Amino acid sequence: MQMEIINTGSELMLGFVLNTHQQWLCRQLTDIGYVVNRQTAINDSGAAIDEAVREALARADVVITTGGLGPTSDDITRDRIAKMLGCKLREDAEALRNLEDFFQRRHRRAPESTRVQALVPEGAIVLQNAHGTAPGLVMEIASGRFRQAGGGSLLVMLPGPPRELRPMFTEQVVPLLKEKCPLPSEFVCRVLKTTGLGESLIEERIAGPLRELTDAGMDLGYCARVGEVDVRCAGFGQQGREQTEAAESKIRELLGEYIYGTGDDGLEEVVVKLLTEQGKTLAIAESCTGGFIGNRITNVPGASAVLLAGWVTYSNAAKQKCLRVNEATLKDHGAVSEAAAREMAQGALKVSGADFALSVTGIAGPAGETEEKPVGTVFIALATKRSTTVQRQINRYDRETFKWVTSQQALEMIRRAAMAR
Amino acid sequence: MQMEIINTGSELMLGFVLNTHQQWLCRQLTDIGYVVNRQTAINDSGAAIDEAVREALARADVVITTGGLGPTSDDITRDRIAKMLGCKLREDAEALRNLEDFFQRRHRRAPESTRVQALVPEGAIVLQNAHGTAPGLVMEIASGRFRQAGGGSLLVMLPGPPRELRPMFTEQVVPLLKEKCPLPSEFVCRVLKTTGLGESLIEERIAGPLRELTDAGMDLGYCARVGEVDVRCAGFGQQGREQTEAAESKIRELLGEYIYGTGDDGLEEVVVKLLTEQGKTLAIAESCTGGFIGNRITNVPGASAVLLAGWVTYSNAAKQKCLRVNEATLKDHGAVSEAAAREMAQGALKVSGADFALSVTGIAGPAGETEEKPVGTVFIALATKRSTTVQRQINRYDRETFKWVTSQQALEMIRRAAMAR
Repeated sequence: MQMEIINTGSELMLGFVLNTHQQWLCRQLTDIGYVVNRQTAINDSGAAIDEAVREALARADVVITTGGLGPTSDDITRDRIAKMLGCKLREDAEALRNLEDFFQRRHRRAPESTRVQALVPEGAIVLQNAHGTAPGLVMEIASGRFRQAGGGSLLVMLPGPPRELRPMFTEQVVPLLKEKCPLPSEFVCRVLKTTGLGESLIEERIAGPLRELTDAGMDLGYCARVGEVDVRCAGFGQQGREQTEAAESKIRELLGEYIYGTGDDGLEEVVVKLLTEQGKTLAIAESCTGGFIGNRITNVPGASAVLLAGWVTYSNAAKQKCLRVNEATLKDHGAVSEAAAREMAQGALKVSGADFALSVTGIAGPAGETEEKPVGTVFIALATKRSTTVQRQINRYDRETFKWVTSQQALEMIRRAAMAR
Repeated sequence: MQMEIINTGSELMLGFVLNTHQQWLCRQLTDIGYVVNRQTAINDSGAAIDEAVREALARADVVITTGGLGPTSDDITRDRIAKMLGCKLREDAEALRNLEDFFQRRHRRAPESTRVQALVPEGAIVLQNAHGTAPGLVMEIASGRFRQAGGGSLLVMLPGPPRELRPMFTEQVVPLLKEKCPLPSEFVCRVLKTTGLGESLIEERIAGPLRELTDAGMDLGYCARVGEVDVRCAGFGQQGREQTEAAESKIRELLGEYIYGTGDDGLEEVVVKLLTEQGKTLAIAESCTGGFIGNRITNVPGASAVLLAGWVTYSNAAKQKCLRVNEATLKDHGAVSEAAAREMAQGALKVSGADFALSVTGIAGPAGETEEKPVGTVFIALATKRSTTVQRQINRYDRETFKWVTSQQALEMIRRAAMAR
């Protein structure tokens, strides 16, 4: 099965916005067993759209376009494709009603110019848009029309805004794909998320023991990002299910506590869920990460049940005043030290009354390093009523990556401590 | 001038990583007057690479590939392209020395398998890699070889890791492009960054008054993202310079204080720079934004000169204990209220001793709304020794976008207050 994605939008080609559709759509399709072979981005120009869609339809079973369905003058995808396919446009009553409802809910009348979005090519399947005004469109292209060999194609046109595209894809396109372009057998995929071990160390531990399964056809892949590695097992049908289940228990045995979650779990979600289940609370004292760990935790809905308080104690005065760090500690050991991290965590614990208090102090760079403490040096402490532990790490990256990696280590420290209780 | 980008990498097509190269390269090229016509992403498969490169060379004056130059088995771009072009590979002495130095600086011997990266196609211009081991490559493709009409093409191959690709592009590819594919005349571009007005309101204010310039050929564009709009004026040569200068003063006159910066300025950078220049300090008390504003401020190198302290006072107890908010205020008005925001800011000012103290309290959602205070309601207060002002906003978005939009409004509040002093 050949699949292609075409992203239209001059703002993409000018580099003004990041193309998040590509990753999102590819990931959704990967997770249900489809593979995208090619993605193309082009300007909102009629000739470019014609050319790219024509070429893709000559190669692929499924072609998905994004963007160009709205009401403005540069939204030309629907019209160009209808013209290319020789389809007339008709006004879709339900799409029009949806559009009028959309404006009514906002206490406005639908501007005349927006009605163009209710025009759909004859013969198209209309995907109503629950979060916007432009419906999605699906057209079945007859065999032999664009492809010299092979069957027909499915052409799926989706609106550009992510909050419209994503639910439309999940709720309407995925069932349609499964119906119109079924996979030979059920696809089974299991992703285990790890942190704390590099890709090569993970491969070293598991590739050998899993050889029997991979030799028998199970797909085993690694996806390494800074601060985490996903291990992915996949296969088809009953055999695939048995293989991925066997692989998962083997990997869990071999990687143990390095695995923090599955699927799309983020480490912050795992930590919030774990503490919520345990009825435990958290306080966070950040220096060099500047609020990034608090931000990650509070990105999780329901974080308020867990996070009592956070501090960004960038200055020494704030460390003393808010967290009761001793002046002598800062003077003797410096603000970036095991002793300072320890006192910050203990201070946060006492002031907040939380069950766990985390602290981070380090040198994000680019300036501030000393002979003894190079850029990237960071101390991470975790205090509970019973004890305080401190880690020293050297995370030598640019400023934002430094914060990310440090936050992974810090969240993992909380997760492990909570698991151990 | 036709330009295309080809991104290779199975991890892109599986949706495991976001393709940041596209936006970055497109933006760099846009800023110096080149326009990318098409971008394609494909798997690390020999056939896919051959096909995509061949097609692009048949269309474009410049083709830039990313990825596939490293030492592992899926790094096949260099080999496939050399074969396609009928070029032998030779070992480049400087690339080999660079590779050996790279490992030596890390106190390791270069593994034998990595030496393959010093192999370059005969006739290629070698771009040494200051931040990694795989050099970039540039090949001049003769006229008539792939393109039926028009001249030859420049084929630029860049390594995949951003920290290697970016400096190589800026320092080596840009000068080469300017030399080999010069623009007809100098490109002039000016981007003004605004926040606080929507795209249509900005257009309403400036499009008419700038009509004379746009009619005379100046390019005027808008790039709207949530919470900010860029206005971009561009042209060529002496006329373009005069037009964009005239446009800039007209736009500054019409948009005034809605303009917070130029070019690539971020609002957080503008705020840190402004406060640093004024020798002023800042404290931040966050509830619903959970550390996101502190995180943005501390992403700016040198933020430590400005930011004295931050709090993430998620719980009522923390608001009382850390920021001295009155129990009665929380009881009578609620934690999400003008009164609570005011006391949080004033408390942060007193405790930290800063010149400006910002506070944010609101309902990020999805839960927590009341009849009177819907999801998205947020109070932002700014306290100085002289006065405290509070804004009420309704930012009805998903949780992360809510934080972003709120942080824009909050940073803008600081910027305007600092400008007014």
